[in-house]
Amino acid sequence: MNDVIDQLKTRFRKISGLDHAMTFLSWDQMVMMPDGGMKQRSESMAELAELRHEFLTDEKIGGLLEECTGTNLTAEQEAMTREMRLTRDQEVCLPASLVKAKIMAGSKCEHQWRTQRETNDWSGFLGNFREVVDLAREEAGIRHDQGEFRTPYEALLDLYCTGDSAARVDAVFESLRVSVPDLLIQVMEKQGEKTESSYQGTFDVEQQKKLNEVLMAKLGFDFSAGRLDVSVHPFSTGDRGDQRITTRFTESEFAEALLGTAHETGHASYEGNLPEQWAGQPLGGSRNMCIHESQSLLFEKQIFLSRAFFSHFYHDIKQAFPDNIGDDPDRLWSEILFVHPGYIRVEADEVTYPLHVLLRYEIERDLINGAMEAEDVPDAWEEKMESYLGLKVNHEHKVGCMQDIHWTDGSFGYFPSYTMGAVNSAQLFKSIRTEHPDWEARFGVGDTGFVREWLQKNIWSQGRYLTSQQLIEGATGESTNAECLIEHLRSRYLQTTH
Amino acid sequence: MNDVIDQLKTRFRKISGLDHAMTFLSWDQMVMMPDGGMKQRSESMAELAELRHEFLTDEKIGGLLEECTGTNLTAEQEAMTREMRLTRDQEVCLPASLVKAKIMAGSKCEHQWRTQRETNDWSGFLGNFREVVDLAREEAGIRHDQGEFRTPYEALLDLYCTGDSAARVDAVFESLRVSVPDLLIQVMEKQGEKTESSYQGTFDVEQQKKLNEVLMAKLGFDFSAGRLDVSVHPFSTGDRGDQRITTRFTESEFAEALLGTAHETGHASYEGNLPEQWAGQPLGGSRNMCIHESQSLLFEKQIFLSRAFFSHFYHDIKQAFPDNIGDDPDRLWSEILFVHPGYIRVEADEVTYPLHVLLRYEIERDLINGAMEAEDVPDAWEEKMESYLGLKVNHEHKVGCMQDIHWTDGSFGYFPSYTMGAVNSAQLFKSIRTEHPDWEARFGVGDTGFVREWLQKNIWSQGRYLTSQQLIEGATGESTNAECLIEHLRSRYLQTTH
Repeated sequence: MNDVIDQLKTRFRKISGLDHAMTFLSWDQMVMMPDGGMKQRSESMAELAELRHEFLTDEKIGGLLEECTGTNLTAEQEAMTREMRLTRDQEVCLPASLVKAKIMAGSKCEHQWRTQRETNDWSGFLGNFREVVDLAREEAGIRHDQGEFRTPYEALLDLYCTGDSAARVDAVFESLRVSVPDLLIQVMEKQGEKTESSYQGTFDVEQQKKLNEVLMAKLGFDFSAGRLDVSVHPFSTGDRGDQRITTRFTESEFAEALLGTAHETGHASYEGNLPEQWAGQPLGGSRNMCIHESQSLLFEKQIFLSRAFFSHFYHDIKQAFPDNIGDDPDRLWSEILFVHPGYIRVEADEVTYPLHVLLRYEIERDLINGAMEAEDVPDAWEEKMESYLGLKVNHEHKVGCMQDIHWTDGSFGYFPSYTMGAVNSAQLFKSIRTEHPDWEARFGVGDTGFVREWLQKNIWSQGRYLTSQQLIEGATGESTNAECLIEHLRSRYLQTTH
Repeated sequence: MNDVIDQLKTRFRKISGLDHAMTFLSWDQMVMMPDGGMKQRSESMAELAELRHEFLTDEKIGGLLEECTGTNLTAEQEAMTREMRLTRDQEVCLPASLVKAKIMAGSKCEHQWRTQRETNDWSGFLGNFREVVDLAREEAGIRHDQGEFRTPYEALLDLYCTGDSAARVDAVFESLRVSVPDLLIQVMEKQGEKTESSYQGTFDVEQQKKLNEVLMAKLGFDFSAGRLDVSVHPFSTGDRGDQRITTRFTESEFAEALLGTAHETGHASYEGNLPEQWAGQPLGGSRNMCIHESQSLLFEKQIFLSRAFFSHFYHDIKQAFPDNIGDDPDRLWSEILFVHPGYIRVEADEVTYPLHVLLRYEIERDLINGAMEAEDVPDAWEEKMESYLGLKVNHEHKVGCMQDIHWTDGSFGYFPSYTMGAVNSAQLFKSIRTEHPDWEARFGVGDTGFVREWLQKNIWSQGRYLTSQQLIEGATGESTNAECLIEHLRSRYLQTTH
């Protein structure tokens, strides 16, 4: 049986080699590539995706996995083949032509979006987007027919929230739907009107980049195994030993980039510390996006935005911009935490964020299930923005339905993992606080190593050995639910003076 | 037969998709990748190379090409299948395991060389280098056994000087060996001692980068289809629509980067303007390295370093560095053209350059043919440097045998194409001057478009439709020979006052 396992491992290592290539070609496309490179890049990426599809759906893998079924495997081999099977099953149902068409359409739509978004060009975007939606519906239909899903949309949701049932996702959203609007009103009453800003002037981008690198280092990022660059939409990608994170800078303020950098550093820390012994195997991958996002949000909201860590890092900010920053760390902290319903998801505070996700969740669900058409997205968006957040978009699509990258390449079903991640991160951090009662003192001197050690042991080193709920239960004692997040929001925004 | 041709084209387009991926992953490795990424990158690159090898050596391609033999093909189809056959024959003789081992060893050796070179660590380098040499010998042996080559080394030479016989290469070197040493003595006598520099101070790197981009624009580089970055060793790579060139900057002077940029812009202009109708096919590729290098040297030595163009571009240099540059363009021009035997090939002047290539040619020939071992390279290098250029290396390998990237990944047989390129460029530029007697006036106002048009018509648009000697004969009326280069050197260095 060991021979069969070895053959499977060799085949999956080959697939991982193609994944590596696609990962960095995609990074290059977003960060480095000039417009003229689009045609050849799309073709090459489509071909690699086709090869990956061919390799993964090769009948020989099916046969080898078949040979393992019912035999006496070690627990490790059991987990290894389970994740191989899952990876393969997700892929095997799609015809190669659909995989290729998706990559081509998504790549084109996303690339043109980079400029269409700037010029608010919805009608230009719609032509590409319609094609992306059609292909996603085709995919959802196929997955729905072959899996245990209530709707086509839920079949896509499971690609990101793998193993977390739709019922669980719905329960989390329901708790938040009940609590958040009321909480938002209380928070806004308590904090009152926005006071005059304690920072001012222009923030040199080169200087900001250095400051962000200082933050990454304090959060434990290893620069011999990764880099920071600039892109339209911040993201994190990479492979073992080479984590690439991006952020975006504006000269008018400094906080958005820092928040983004802390966030992406969380993603990169997870990816960069997955179990070495399962490198190149599905078992060695990250669990799902609800866990992934819990790591980024833990770094952003629980570490960086903790009063203790922020009061430490304040001095780095002050040193970088001595003339632009006021003298009161707590006042600066409160300003950055200021809760206000806004247009842009990535700039949203913790309290309103779930409403941004809810809006997207409802639209993409209807879009994929056929209850809405691509051309109806702007109207639905504007109606929901007004209803949930009280904001009028007025056809400013660049701060409306064209703000995010996710739909451009057809990643429908991704958004809910942001809120599932927020919920998981609050739960995980509660356990970390319990285990390390001196956490505030440590954060106060910039020490975050103990958090990394805890995450290394409980999350990062596990890869996909456990299911997501086994991971969360093992680390926190209960399965994913919204209570800790609500408790965290109440504690931070209603009990703290700021 | 059209159906067979279409099947062949589809197969070669797939190979081209893999080439695209390897091209940009390799660029990333040289320009962007942190050290930690090496292991996964090497594995992914090795796998892509193995796939490329598999696709190219697939018996079905052999069968399809067989079907075409002796049939009534159009001239275009004849050329298309001829280049497919050549591309395949070069590959088919090597076992997949050797191809993979070469990539792994070369990738590792090159990556570590980046730091070993800085620390002059020959013994660290030797371990990797020996492996690279062993694999190159194995390759040369196989190619020698299967082709019409006098020695194993000549079989590697033909990978770069494809179609230009070793006899022709030898004839060119022989002419230069006879003429250059005498010419060098005359030039050094005429120019006298080096005068005090007319430039001084430090040259801000950001400002230099902008200046280099101005130069690229004046040489016709399209920034929507390419970019300029920094790397240890300047190079140019890319695919249709996306030409990536690199250079290196030092704060102590500005000329080396400009020369490198002009040079790489020539390479990029050729690659970026190959015939669109043959995209993804061997027929649509660049002819050989002797033609490729003629394009880069034409841009560097014949355009940028012409007195007319330089006197125009002088004003851009002066504008970028008003306080560092003297007021006499001709004096600056003479300083940049100053002939002096030096250690570094990429910094060498036109007169001594052939001697640098001769030295490398002799060493790599002996190394591959087994007349020298890897550990003997430093001694051979030092002996030849003293004999040809009168310089003692004193084990400073970083300015000796560790200065170039070429041998680190096993590109033995590449160096001679530099001198073949120099010879071709002088020949081509003589024809351009004859056809455009007003060339100096045009260069004087920064107009280089007419050169690009001529090259587009005579070289770039041809792809591999013609053999290299058909190309050169068609464009200049004679086959490749050293006379025009010698004439150019005499004219520039012995007849011009500077």
